[in-house]
Amino acid sequence: MILASLKTENPDGQLIAVSPDHQRYVKIEEPVSSLLAATENWGGLSANLQAASDQLSQGGGDTLDITQLAAPMPRSWQWLDGSAFSTHGDLMQIAFGLDPIDTDRPLMYQGVSDRFFGPTEDYPLPTTEHGIDFEGEFGVIVDHVPMGTSAEDAMKHIKLIVQINDWSLRAIAPIEMKTGFGWVQAKPACSMAPFAVTPDELGDGWKDGRVCLNLEIEWNGKKFGAANGAAMDFGFHELVAHAALTRDLVPGTIIGSGTVSNPEYAEVGSSCISEVRAIEMIRDKGPATTPFMSFGDRIRMEGRGVDGSSPFGVIDQKVVQA
Amino acid sequence: MILASLKTENPDGQLIAVSPDHQRYVKIEEPVSSLLAATENWGGLSANLQAASDQLSQGGGDTLDITQLAAPMPRSWQWLDGSAFSTHGDLMQIAFGLDPIDTDRPLMYQGVSDRFFGPTEDYPLPTTEHGIDFEGEFGVIVDHVPMGTSAEDAMKHIKLIVQINDWSLRAIAPIEMKTGFGWVQAKPACSMAPFAVTPDELGDGWKDGRVCLNLEIEWNGKKFGAANGAAMDFGFHELVAHAALTRDLVPGTIIGSGTVSNPEYAEVGSSCISEVRAIEMIRDKGPATTPFMSFGDRIRMEGRGVDGSSPFGVIDQKVVQA
Repeated sequence: MILASLKTENPDGQLIAVSPDHQRYVKIEEPVSSLLAATENWGGLSANLQAASDQLSQGGGDTLDITQLAAPMPRSWQWLDGSAFSTHGDLMQIAFGLDPIDTDRPLMYQGVSDRFFGPTEDYPLPTTEHGIDFEGEFGVIVDHVPMGTSAEDAMKHIKLIVQINDWSLRAIAPIEMKTGFGWVQAKPACSMAPFAVTPDELGDGWKDGRVCLNLEIEWNGKKFGAANGAAMDFGFHELVAHAALTRDLVPGTIIGSGTVSNPEYAEVGSSCISEVRAIEMIRDKGPATTPFMSFGDRIRMEGRGVDGSSPFGVIDQKVVQA
Repeated sequence: MILASLKTENPDGQLIAVSPDHQRYVKIEEPVSSLLAATENWGGLSANLQAASDQLSQGGGDTLDITQLAAPMPRSWQWLDGSAFSTHGDLMQIAFGLDPIDTDRPLMYQGVSDRFFGPTEDYPLPTTEHGIDFEGEFGVIVDHVPMGTSAEDAMKHIKLIVQINDWSLRAIAPIEMKTGFGWVQAKPACSMAPFAVTPDELGDGWKDGRVCLNLEIEWNGKKFGAANGAAMDFGFHELVAHAALTRDLVPGTIIGSGTVSNPEYAEVGSSCISEVRAIEMIRDKGPATTPFMSFGDRIRMEGRGVDGSSPFGVIDQKVVQA
């Protein structure tokens, strides 16, 4: 099942089911009309999903206009972002002379969840002096996960998979990180690709709790990276279990993978500017040459299967002055 | 105005206005029936508040039973907790041999906001091996704060003041802090005292964006601390402005002070066990002697004015095995 949300006055958006070719949609209404509500009542959603699916498979529904889409989940009670690709962490550590982070447990921070920008919305920030960067990643949305759930049991709580741009401000990030308190100013709201999909939609692209797709990234129309999500050190089920050790996870909690990053970065590229700058610093034994983003810059992200499929659709948005 | 929330099936609770003696209440319904909704429509709330206030001042309303109360805001889209009492940070740093944290800017982390426990609810945790601790603090609830709001302008967005127990797991906290990613497992859901009050309710107890009350704490019936909230290095308006540098703050965002701590800790005591243990380690040049909490332990917290007033009411709850 492919789900998305139309922009509405209601900040939770209007839930829709989308045809496999992403061209048509049917609104989902009673008993749940938003994706957040659906995660709280997955059973209640089922009958409607079947009816919508039947309608779409018979060629029914309305024509989908991507620019009318909000994030599939425009807000949630909780957003926890991992950093599960150790290549990224290793590069940052070497470039900036940081102490190595003990990696026998997943890295994770709590981020702002009250707003996720839609795939084509302009993204406002106050100044380029903060070092504006993108981070391409994948994420999962869970239903209720009881405290103490094991990684094995966590798998069945993963209801949907999404693709995320975790906007980051690199001039502030190391200052906040040094305090040990994590990021607040350095991690404003994220954006999401149009479609949230059930794991079965990915076919072989969903394996061991990992999204095994290339995340193709273009910055101002130039190819930037196509790292693969399979390289996570921990699967999403393990990230979910990590998050649930001392708390219940409320339905609709979103868990992120962190910047997709591969050991073959020289061939496949990266998913954030900061990593490219780290690679330059290590390679050139000097300052980085790639600048961060300017106002008016566009960022495009699309997770693609080996068959060329694009299950989450495309994030293509512009960063603008607030 | 004194507001609280009755426990209901609806996780946002039923908003009530409470009499000055905390003995009676009147339900607030249309157009807003929860505190979260009220922060989104403060104007819409006003007429009802006046009517409720009139009814209460004429001796009307129902009898209030504290055990029927949820947290005044049982969930919110965002919880950002400061650490604005430098005495606490200094003691922890000395005791644990940590690097000093650069303090020219407020310290703040993003915490879990999807649940705040009520003042008398049992608090479930998986194991005492995690080092169960309380942290007594004050907090504010804001309406919409636009990105880039100054500290001066932030003051008028502070709509309500609350009292919080920021439950903390001390065996996990330093491990997570060392990563720089902040706390996830070490900071499960907080609890709140019964009443959220408008700043005017505190009279002289609200000054320079600080709650100038003693936070009286008893652990298993024994006096533990009575540190004063006036000692914040940054006022709440400055914490709000800090949080809003790169994001809009959504209505209902809660900002915490961090553990209340005073330079006169030897006389006034502390607001968390961890600080007492740090004081013991420094004083005795050896291991701490005060243990963390056991299941069945009770924690009582009450902010009190010089006149003996108790504007937020009492948190009095038991920690239990999940």
